[in-house]
Amino acid sequence: MQQYRTDLAMERVNDFGSLSGVRTENATLGAFSRNIVQIENEEAARQLQKPCGQYITFHTQQPKLLSSEEKSELAGLIAGSLRHLLPPHGEILIVGLGNRRITSDALGSRVTESVLITRHLKDVLAPAIQGRLRGVCALSPGVLGVTGMETKDIVRGAVDHVKPSAVIAVDALSARECARIGTTIQLTDTGIQPGSGVGNHREGLTKETLGVPVIAIGVPLVVYTAVIVRDALSILLSDMEDTQDSREAAADSLAQRILSADLGEMVVTPREIDELVAALAQIIALSLNIALQPRLSRQEITMLTHETL
Amino acid sequence: MQQYRTDLAMERVNDFGSLSGVRTENATLGAFSRNIVQIENEEAARQLQKPCGQYITFHTQQPKLLSSEEKSELAGLIAGSLRHLLPPHGEILIVGLGNRRITSDALGSRVTESVLITRHLKDVLAPAIQGRLRGVCALSPGVLGVTGMETKDIVRGAVDHVKPSAVIAVDALSARECARIGTTIQLTDTGIQPGSGVGNHREGLTKETLGVPVIAIGVPLVVYTAVIVRDALSILLSDMEDTQDSREAAADSLAQRILSADLGEMVVTPREIDELVAALAQIIALSLNIALQPRLSRQEITMLTHETL
Amino acid sequence: MQQYRTDLAMERVNDFGSLSGVRTENATLGAFSRNIVQIENEEAARQLQKPCGQYITFHTQQPKLLSSEEKSELAGLIAGSLRHLLPPHGEILIVGLGNRRITSDALGSRVTESVLITRHLKDVLAPAIQGRLRGVCALSPGVLGVTGMETKDIVRGAVDHVKPSAVIAVDALSARECARIGTTIQLTDTGIQPGSGVGNHREGLTKETLGVPVIAIGVPLVVYTAVIVRDALSILLSDMEDTQDSREAAADSLAQRILSADLGEMVVTPREIDELVAALAQIIALSLNIALQPRLSRQEITMLTHETL
Amino acid sequence: MQQYRTDLAMERVNDFGSLSGVRTENATLGAFSRNIVQIENEEAARQLQKPCGQYITFHTQQPKLLSSEEKSELAGLIAGSLRHLLPPHGEILIVGLGNRRITSDALGSRVTESVLITRHLKDVLAPAIQGRLRGVCALSPGVLGVTGMETKDIVRGAVDHVKPSAVIAVDALSARECARIGTTIQLTDTGIQPGSGVGNHREGLTKETLGVPVIAIGVPLVVYTAVIVRDALSILLSDMEDTQDSREAAADSLAQRILSADLGEMVVTPREIDELVAALAQIIALSLNIALQPRLSRQEITMLTHETL
Repeated sequence: MQQYRTDLAMERVNDFGSLSGVRTENATLGAFSRNIVQIENEEAARQLQKPCGQYITFHTQQPKLLSSEEKSELAGLIAGSLRHLLPPHGEILIVGLGNRRITSDALGSRVTESVLITRHLKDVLAPAIQGRLRGVCALSPGVLGVTGMETKDIVRGAVDHVKPSAVIAVDALSARECARIGTTIQLTDTGIQPGSGVGNHREGLTKETLGVPVIAIGVPLVVYTAVIVRDALSILLSDMEDTQDSREAAADSLAQRILSADLGEMVVTPREIDELVAALAQIIALSLNIALQPRLSRQEITMLTHETL
Repeated sequence: MQQYRTDLAMERVNDFGSLSGVRTENATLGAFSRNIVQIENEEAARQLQKPCGQYITFHTQQPKLLSSEEKSELAGLIAGSLRHLLPPHGEILIVGLGNRRITSDALGSRVTESVLITRHLKDVLAPAIQGRLRGVCALSPGVLGVTGMETKDIVRGAVDHVKPSAVIAVDALSARECARIGTTIQLTDTGIQPGSGVGNHREGLTKETLGVPVIAIGVPLVVYTAVIVRDALSILLSDMEDTQDSREAAADSLAQRILSADLGEMVVTPREIDELVAALAQIIALSLNIALQPRLSRQEITMLTHETL
Repeated sequence: MQQYRTDLAMERVNDFGSLSGVRTENATLGAFSRNIVQIENEEAARQLQKPCGQYITFHTQQPKLLSSEEKSELAGLIAGSLRHLLPPHGEILIVGLGNRRITSDALGSRVTESVLITRHLKDVLAPAIQGRLRGVCALSPGVLGVTGMETKDIVRGAVDHVKPSAVIAVDALSARECARIGTTIQLTDTGIQPGSGVGNHREGLTKETLGVPVIAIGVPLVVYTAVIVRDALSILLSDMEDTQDSREAAADSLAQRILSADLGEMVVTPREIDELVAALAQIIALSLNIALQPRLSRQEITMLTHETL
Repeated sequence: MQQYRTDLAMERVNDFGSLSGVRTENATLGAFSRNIVQIENEEAARQLQKPCGQYITFHTQQPKLLSSEEKSELAGLIAGSLRHLLPPHGEILIVGLGNRRITSDALGSRVTESVLITRHLKDVLAPAIQGRLRGVCALSPGVLGVTGMETKDIVRGAVDHVKPSAVIAVDALSARECARIGTTIQLTDTGIQPGSGVGNHREGLTKETLGVPVIAIGVPLVVYTAVIVRDALSILLSDMEDTQDSREAAADSLAQRILSADLGEMVVTPREIDELVAALAQIIALSLNIALQPRLSRQEITMLTHETL
């Protein structure tokens, strides 16, 4: 069993309590809260199995319970953090990761469908609007099993052609706690790591592999069943065992005995996953539009968003 | 926690070992196997929490690994059992249960979309084909939360109007073991019970509520997360406790402590659920067409199936 | 060729100029306009081939060009007219007509998916909210070719059980002019007539067939190709022929010669039909929620709308 | 109005009767027929507005009327022609063109979802099967309005990385006659031309732009409404005018007068377009699998096709 199987830096930090080289900061913002984790040195990175950099996590209640105004407010908060992570000028390439035919892995693809694409419009629009547009393009390449190509290789082709100042990669994540499904949105300037995401990317999308900064936006949409069983066992054993270490080892060995091969690949997901992914894609696409097009009004964004053919 | 949370009679029988008033029969049929459970008296029914009647269960490997020929063969086997459960004459009403917008609950609805509907064609077809057609109609009413009406009440309206000789109800089930998801197809002449199915029907569809025999076809498509955790705990405790009874009680109480309210409603499902439901709907619709239209050739079935408007 | 093949009363009235027994009224309402046609006697009804009653038509620009605020405003206007047509008390049954698997015919089905369903909640909600809820239920029965049953017969079963004070039927219509596709919303207190709608209902849904008032809401989503060709020929012939009557006859006979059987069933539709239907379904569902639940706040409507299972 | 607005070489050849530099050949193959057009010199290419090369067109009745065996037979025939057009060795990149969110433009994308992708499997499979596999990868990049990048530029990035021996591009086409919708499948070794396809590609995919041979597979799925009206007028005028040339000019000028701007962009399409695209995608994907993997059995193809993640 994979040791942690969470893509959330925050969940890993919580496991460790305080750790040298890690700074955290929490804020309540109306109905939402924001947690910032800064991993500052390689030793902390090694222990947390997460690269050095910034991880900004927003928490919300279930998106279906948010009013239109609250969704809009949440998108505005995310946009505020995004702006800090992005270079101020240059075109942006948005990459929707995951497999669009598997609902729990389709978030990235859905976001690219709703974001305002402007790169091809710069020559055809009226000068009045043209000067206020940031060039944005998007790609949803599909997963390795569907294309036969590493995602990184397809994206690199586009990066070489477009020469954006940054890439924004959107992906579905796995978490360790069911309560995080659909309620946690993580931004990071460390890109996408190998092995992360629902679809388990074989190779990463990072500044090293693509040559430009990569901002990643992710939302947990599944928990692996194996993780839940293992955690249940760990709680149970806390009654019986003396130290945390021996408890964890016992839980691992029990979990291995109990879990069939099948179960490890099964995922836990809410039944209304289709609706949940739709709501999150809408919020994230709006936050991208706000962050990337600060000089357009909402009305202008709406009108341009529908020029889809 | 609901005691068992499996809709499969066979899983319940397996828990009990031999039980008076229950007859079972197993057969291997090429690449598939078939298990028949006959619950013969009220005492057995009470213990198993399943009404008296016949439960026929087919087992297959994952549908995506079946060739077209094997799918066709499996459909033929199911059709053979269906024919024994159905009255020989009269029109048939097929009811697709569940919520079509939630993939793991959409099997019933998908089957009604692919089955050959003939009731409205009887007057318009050439006499040569007309005399060989059994009248079939179908309804996919949607769940209580979507319609505001009990499924049973909508179906009863259609039964009163059509006066079929039997109803066939198709539904997604929950199982206790992940290995059963998509690999087990259960037929029964006892109809649909209250509280069963992924969508947890509040009221049943049975001969008592509808006035005509109700044959149910179901396939497990989810396992409740709570069930998996509880079963893991039970295995674990088998090392420590003396008797089965005390073990089960301890597992229940531990599970209750560990499981958050959230988790109880989370479901375990394969990631490729969309594809799985499509394959199963195709197999079941074909088995219905074979069972209900024995006097039509495959070519005739194909041509008529596409007259959908 | 069907004589008119438009479901819009307003298009028929326009063909006739002034007609005794028909009153019309036009209003501009911000960015929208509203046209009311009142057919007051049988002679006018016969000439227009539309039953006596009220037809209220709203006009908008393409829905994709509307901002969220404008959509909300349009929904409010439609709700205002709906309230006048509906009985003040009693439960309401909403019927989504058409075939959900054919996008241009799926409007009715999509609306029922987004409307607030309350009938089953009346017993479970807190008294504070319960007293302010109007009971609403919904059914999307599917078309004759998919169910084998006349829509009217399925709906009548539900009406007999629920005993609503009125039925609201939502359907996709055909128009004569392409410019009306997606831009015209017609309300009428005359119900659904036989032969109308994209799916061409064989039997109507009216006060006569269902026993309660039937309010119909429809939006043109296709124009039959045959209609376009015929109208083009009619314009052309206006150069050459003396009288309108001989011109129309000549156009009919030419159209018949030119049109293959195929073409008559082909429909003209915008390429972005999927997106158009989604936007319209959202507007109409919102207008229904406003009209039917005047004592709920928007926030309460949102929260209740998502209780879909 | 665009002069011809058909993507079918065969329809253009039919307009001209015999033309020097064009060879045609017809064959009946069971229930299907095949037409081969060879454009041999630049003069013929200019007149037909189609580049020099081979155009192979298969004709079938409506796909929904074909049995499984007939679909399989048709796929085998297409595969036979494909094999002649493809280089015997080297990896193949399949490109699904068009906008997957617009059903009539989604054929290319759907085909890539069903084709056997093998490039990434070559290292992980058993040697027994590995040696018999041709490397195949696929990309469905999305249209300019959705990505902000020319399709050609995204594909070129993938070609540079993969270095395939050929590209196969699959696209939805427009035709001039409604009867061709879904019943005509065109193969050509001339690639995709600028301005062709339902989505009207701004730049082409050809050996010149990509550096490797490009085989295009296309199926007409729409007819532009403007084309139908113009053709109707042309037939009408044939009664009145003396010469073909003056007749065509009169039809053009009349059409221009009659057609609103709207209408020119409206498309004619069958109502069951969703079902039609699904059936065609299945046939074409099967023909690609047969042509590209001649050393695999059907059973092996099925099993590998489902390894989608």
